[in-house]
Amino acid sequence: MRKKLQAFLSTPQFERTILILIVINAIVLALETYPFIMDRYGPLLEAIDKAILWVFVAEVGARLALNPLAFWRDPWRVFDFLVVAIALLPATGQLSILRALRILRVLRLVSAIPSMRRVVTGLLNALPGMGSIVLLLTIIYFVFAVLTTKLFGASFPDWFGSLTKSAYTLFQIMTLESWSMGIVRPVMDVYPTAWLIFIPFLIMTAFTVLNLFIGVIVDAMQSEHEDEAREARDQMQSESALVLEEVRALRREVQDLRGLKKE
Amino acid sequence: MRKKLQAFLSTPQFERTILILIVINAIVLALETYPFIMDRYGPLLEAIDKAILWVFVAEVGARLALNPLAFWRDPWRVFDFLVVAIALLPATGQLSILRALRILRVLRLVSAIPSMRRVVTGLLNALPGMGSIVLLLTIIYFVFAVLTTKLFGASFPDWFGSLTKSAYTLFQIMTLESWSMGIVRPVMDVYPTAWLIFIPFLIMTAFTVLNLFIGVIVDAMQSEHEDEAREARDQMQSESALVLEEVRALRREVQDLRGLKKE
Amino acid sequence: MRKKLQAFLSTPQFERTILILIVINAIVLALETYPFIMDRYGPLLEAIDKAILWVFVAEVGARLALNPLAFWRDPWRVFDFLVVAIALLPATGQLSILRALRILRVLRLVSAIPSMRRVVTGLLNALPGMGSIVLLLTIIYFVFAVLTTKLFGASFPDWFGSLTKSAYTLFQIMTLESWSMGIVRPVMDVYPTAWLIFIPFLIMTAFTVLNLFIGVIVDAMQSEHEDEAREARDQMQSESALVLEEVRALRREVQDLRGLKKE
Amino acid sequence: MRKKLQAFLSTPQFERTILILIVINAIVLALETYPFIMDRYGPLLEAIDKAILWVFVAEVGARLALNPLAFWRDPWRVFDFLVVAIALLPATGQLSILRALRILRVLRLVSAIPSMRRVVTGLLNALPGMGSIVLLLTIIYFVFAVLTTKLFGASFPDWFGSLTKSAYTLFQIMTLESWSMGIVRPVMDVYPTAWLIFIPFLIMTAFTVLNLFIGVIVDAMQSEHEDEAREARDQMQSESALVLEEVRALRREVQDLRGLKKE
Repeated sequence: MRKKLQAFLSTPQFERTILILIVINAIVLALETYPFIMDRYGPLLEAIDKAILWVFVAEVGARLALNPLAFWRDPWRVFDFLVVAIALLPATGQLSILRALRILRVLRLVSAIPSMRRVVTGLLNALPGMGSIVLLLTIIYFVFAVLTTKLFGASFPDWFGSLTKSAYTLFQIMTLESWSMGIVRPVMDVYPTAWLIFIPFLIMTAFTVLNLFIGVIVDAMQSEHEDEAREARDQMQSESALVLEEVRALRREVQDLRGLKKE
Repeated sequence: MRKKLQAFLSTPQFERTILILIVINAIVLALETYPFIMDRYGPLLEAIDKAILWVFVAEVGARLALNPLAFWRDPWRVFDFLVVAIALLPATGQLSILRALRILRVLRLVSAIPSMRRVVTGLLNALPGMGSIVLLLTIIYFVFAVLTTKLFGASFPDWFGSLTKSAYTLFQIMTLESWSMGIVRPVMDVYPTAWLIFIPFLIMTAFTVLNLFIGVIVDAMQSEHEDEAREARDQMQSESALVLEEVRALRREVQDLRGLKKE
Repeated sequence: MRKKLQAFLSTPQFERTILILIVINAIVLALETYPFIMDRYGPLLEAIDKAILWVFVAEVGARLALNPLAFWRDPWRVFDFLVVAIALLPATGQLSILRALRILRVLRLVSAIPSMRRVVTGLLNALPGMGSIVLLLTIIYFVFAVLTTKLFGASFPDWFGSLTKSAYTLFQIMTLESWSMGIVRPVMDVYPTAWLIFIPFLIMTAFTVLNLFIGVIVDAMQSEHEDEAREARDQMQSESALVLEEVRALRREVQDLRGLKKE
Repeated sequence: MRKKLQAFLSTPQFERTILILIVINAIVLALETYPFIMDRYGPLLEAIDKAILWVFVAEVGARLALNPLAFWRDPWRVFDFLVVAIALLPATGQLSILRALRILRVLRLVSAIPSMRRVVTGLLNALPGMGSIVLLLTIIYFVFAVLTTKLFGASFPDWFGSLTKSAYTLFQIMTLESWSMGIVRPVMDVYPTAWLIFIPFLIMTAFTVLNLFIGVIVDAMQSEHEDEAREARDQMQSESALVLEEVRALRREVQDLRGLKKE
């Protein structure tokens, strides 16, 4: 029974069915955003959505029951679990946002398509190498957030009224969006030397983010490169080995010759 | 007759004539945008435009008639066909936009100049490698478009009123244009935690697009690199072969020597 | 006399003097932008400016007189000539802008400092490789400029009223500045499907410019790389040659041995 | 006594304590930005801040006293000194901004964590290679700042009223923020040909900054690459040496053989 279920869950037909259900679910959730469609087919769409949800619950539950250890160790399974679990939470009152989060179920497409899984794994693998630069960026942000909150918070409460507001505004400035006409010029009307804070912040973050990107590019290129270099060396080695073998065989023959001679 | 026509169509003189006609056509269409020129020379310009169009129709028609199979298989010929065909559609009433699309005929410059053709082919060749990342971007866009439509559609119908409006607004946010002052700050005035949706969207798409670019860069560099590496290996191989040959010749001579000895 | 002058013009002391005069000239021109300084020291500053100008005129004139052929062939000398000549044109009436162009004389710093000259030469060397992509961009711009002028020119004369206005607006859109909130959203209020023109334009130009950049990066990297690869091959070749030489010497000895034997 | 102190200052426990104090200090300074927390715990927070400051003063003072020469030579120690010294300056009247600069003490995190120190050193190492391009950018900025001040200063005193205002506006234009809708279009309403100044400025700075980035990328990649290339060559050399040795041994044996023969 257990084995049969396991075998059933990993047949390609079953996997394809799940994939199709995810796509149908995506279409249903997309249609639900159009009021005129909801007016006519609302109950039908919700029924389909609910039905597909229960298939997903059953699937994920079965996988979890069959092998809990393997389930929790596989990050993609945990991802599936979370994305399905969101839909089971009571979505009433203040939590009505949870209803909107049902759409996250569509992200199962990523865990269901192997090539998608590989791309995302590739993207995530680039993250650990960024560790120290991201920490540096965090320190820069923290220092400038405290600084701007203290200096400009009183005059510009909307932009620099608290640490989080300042951090958001600094993020906006880092993306260069309306940094000058929207933020820095108005601030400079009150504090004429404010550019002494913002221009260095811009240059420092731009330079740090640039180096973050360069790190990712160099890493990507290097890993491509190493494969190639290894191959070239293997070839070199095998050719050298061929020559060496010949020379050694020759040497043995010459030594034979000397043996003959001495006899 | 048929052969003669074919030969005529592929003479360099004919190709140069077509090229010159495209350029003249481009100038005529450019002049047509100036009302004061149209007032004076309107009929003349339209006559030239029509005359050149008929040359193109004759040329493309001749090529198509001579060898329909080869015609439909060559994407550049199909491109020429479409660009010329647009001008033949009736451009009245709601379709008056088709008149403006006559300018697309200038794109024949791309198919007529070999170096342009190579550049565009190069650009298009980079596309298939982007497949999975573009699919990932599409999933991210879809999820966020549904999410923002559901959450902010009622309060901001202009920006998030429907899936397509949300997708457009999200594209604008991805390009960083007025994302904060124009869109996210007004949304945050109503939903103070809206940044929890938009900042992750920004970081995810920026990171994904960055990886799209890195993929293109690494690919371009690698193909350059491979040529070079192949050359280096060929040289290595030929040099190893030279040494090997010498050693083998030597060995044969030593074996000769042993033969002499044993006699 | 002629030789003496030539020798004098190329002494390091003279070149250093010219460099110092350029810097002093730059400072003078900078000071002239402050009205309160002009009020007090205006005549003095203008006198210094005029004096330095005449030194430059004398210098460039002497170089030109000594060797006109070499002068016109060296692009840096021609550059110096143009930059100095601007100041000699009558700057009255409508041409008063020419007075402002005196500042271009400061660009002589670039031609006077060898490392600057090398950087600029490096930047300019990257241009020819961009030829076909820049031509492609030009075609795209032309097609979209005509298209947007015809479609939106009547409703938005400020942005799309003529080919040059459209080209400027499209350039602004390509740099992503206010492309959506500033231009495309207002246009979409009148023509709801305008995004069908602007989004493809954005993606096409972004992709083309990206490839322009990649070309420059790959070129820069490749030229670095080639030097290294050549070195590696030279080493490989010299080592192979060493082995080959030894083997050949050995072979000669064995042949000697066979000769001895046969005797 | 002196040795004991030195030993104490370099124990890992002490270093960890300093690190924890920096983090506590950061939290305290962050809490001080919230008025409702300051109202309740203000004196406590200020006391903690002052206490930690004195620990830092004692630590930096001890290091300085123990080995002044080594202290002033280590840029990280000088950095610590400056960051702590700021807090000791009198922060009254116009200098009240110095109180806000206390947050810079958090930057000691960078000097206290080795991996942070390495990242920042890496970033700074990229700077010298940028020297000539930054000088070129400075010349371009200077020329355009003088030019725009002279041409547009009278009509747009807020943007181009003085050299520093023009330089700030040109920096904003270089970052592409509101360059067209915010600055160049209004200027073009008065001076219709102003784009002849701004578009070249945009293209020149974009191209120069791009080359600045490319330089950094190529440098980063090359240093990675050189390590690899050196390794490959070492392998090649050792393999060639092996073959060479064998061949030489063989040659000696053949020469022996000839000796035998001749006897």
